[in-house]
Amino acid sequence: MNKIVTSIESKNISLELSIKLLEAAVVKGKELGMPFSISIVDKVGNLKAFSAMDGAPVLSLEIAQNKAFSAAAYNRPTHEWYDRLKNDPPLLHGIVHTDRLIIFGGGYPILINGELIGGIGVSGGHYTHDMQVCEAALELLKQFEEV
Amino acid sequence: MNKIVTSIESKNISLELSIKLLEAAVVKGKELGMPFSISIVDKVGNLKAFSAMDGAPVLSLEIAQNKAFSAAAYNRPTHEWYDRLKNDPPLLHGIVHTDRLIIFGGGYPILINGELIGGIGVSGGHYTHDMQVCEAALELLKQFEEV
Amino acid sequence: MNKIVTSIESKNISLELSIKLLEAAVVKGKELGMPFSISIVDKVGNLKAFSAMDGAPVLSLEIAQNKAFSAAAYNRPTHEWYDRLKNDPPLLHGIVHTDRLIIFGGGYPILINGELIGGIGVSGGHYTHDMQVCEAALELLKQFEEV
Amino acid sequence: MNKIVTSIESKNISLELSIKLLEAAVVKGKELGMPFSISIVDKVGNLKAFSAMDGAPVLSLEIAQNKAFSAAAYNRPTHEWYDRLKNDPPLLHGIVHTDRLIIFGGGYPILINGELIGGIGVSGGHYTHDMQVCEAALELLKQFEEV
Repeated sequence: MNKIVTSIESKNISLELSIKLLEAAVVKGKELGMPFSISIVDKVGNLKAFSAMDGAPVLSLEIAQNKAFSAAAYNRPTHEWYDRLKNDPPLLHGIVHTDRLIIFGGGYPILINGELIGGIGVSGGHYTHDMQVCEAALELLKQFEEV
Repeated sequence: MNKIVTSIESKNISLELSIKLLEAAVVKGKELGMPFSISIVDKVGNLKAFSAMDGAPVLSLEIAQNKAFSAAAYNRPTHEWYDRLKNDPPLLHGIVHTDRLIIFGGGYPILINGELIGGIGVSGGHYTHDMQVCEAALELLKQFEEV
Repeated sequence: MNKIVTSIESKNISLELSIKLLEAAVVKGKELGMPFSISIVDKVGNLKAFSAMDGAPVLSLEIAQNKAFSAAAYNRPTHEWYDRLKNDPPLLHGIVHTDRLIIFGGGYPILINGELIGGIGVSGGHYTHDMQVCEAALELLKQFEEV
Repeated sequence: MNKIVTSIESKNISLELSIKLLEAAVVKGKELGMPFSISIVDKVGNLKAFSAMDGAPVLSLEIAQNKAFSAAAYNRPTHEWYDRLKNDPPLLHGIVHTDRLIIFGGGYPILINGELIGGIGVSGGHYTHDMQVCEAALELLKQFEEV
């Protein structure tokens, strides 16, 4: 038998966890009193689960999906981009044009025990509101971490 | 004073109903033993809620969304298209190229008391399976009809 | 600790195996005396490795990638589509318009012990030639199957 | 008899050289300890050969291809763009929107004896990392230069 690495194992977010994250995000959205779009993507950025709260702005539908995509596709919260770009003009004028890449807050990787399994993206308010909704949802993950 | 009609009232599916439809669809999907993508759109075809069952084929993600869009955007179940096209060659060779229009089964308008409020689209199996999943979800609506 | 399934484990093709498949495909292409484009994608259809033999037709570059995508994204060899469509007119006139879906031969899922880990797509000749190139490459997989 | 120039001769990168460049790039990527996507295009920017190292971010797949395209399509390393744009506002606010044009480092033309034969693009790290990977690969070319 030949000795090569034929495949790489990885984990991907389940629908069950995705729905629990959406529910927690909606609870936070109601608390803030604003309607948000919330998107969960899998490890490679493909749509896994989605909820648009009643009254969510049309513009938020795609931004929420793109934030979740961005977070998973580079394993980086979207709000961390600008700090890395602001003193790096080629990127500041360049990478911002990348299709589907969002460089403001409201997208977070979803990690279990440090491993990327998906992404969450929220849009509807200022990005500081969007980030609060994400963070409220991600609180849930703590109970699933291995001790 | 001028009397003009300034606006038109319409109903749009709620997130609450959308989630119940997704849940019912997933139950049917599990019963069929196949992983489906299920999409709910609002009255104008914008994404409202979405669930991809674990293992749903990548190809189904977009087809499910396009079926729901097609159903709401023309207020017609997607499986009714082909019968209307088959003896109408200009449409059969023309309209099938319309962006996001799906002409096979698995997309249904969502109606309350005969009024269009959204659409559901399912993909993952043959369209006859996809249709069963939609129909199982739409059974739910009966309990919300006014008598 | 909460009891839910948080993630699903899966395997994805390695670069090492991808390159060996490309090499075997090129050997077969030279034997047939025609220049092919050969594409390897991962489990979700994203590009993993690619080789265009010298002189490969420009048209083959994208078709090879789309064949590999189609094969992985629905876990079905592309040459099996037409037999399933030919007596099913709604699909024959409908699903063929799906973005990136190829319904003729030359795309195969890549499986290890029955599990989908990627896809291979070949274009450049008639699809019967393209299929021979794929099959020559996939012969390699046998030596990596567990007994 | 009319004397017109009927055709223009040009050189195009071979698959053989493309693969050697990919291999050298992967060696450098492993040395840096980061997973990169590496793309080789031919003289006109069409995809010739590609490798995504295991674990390369999804976002890097297309950026690597666009960097190689940009480098070949204008015969200019992508990191040279910003210096040419920064004091030229119409370009700085305009040309950066060009489809597939990347204006930060990580894309280089591939030249043999001063003649453009293709392009290489790398993505996955900061562009300073991506550039190191390109440069390591391009070191190879020296042994093929005519003295």
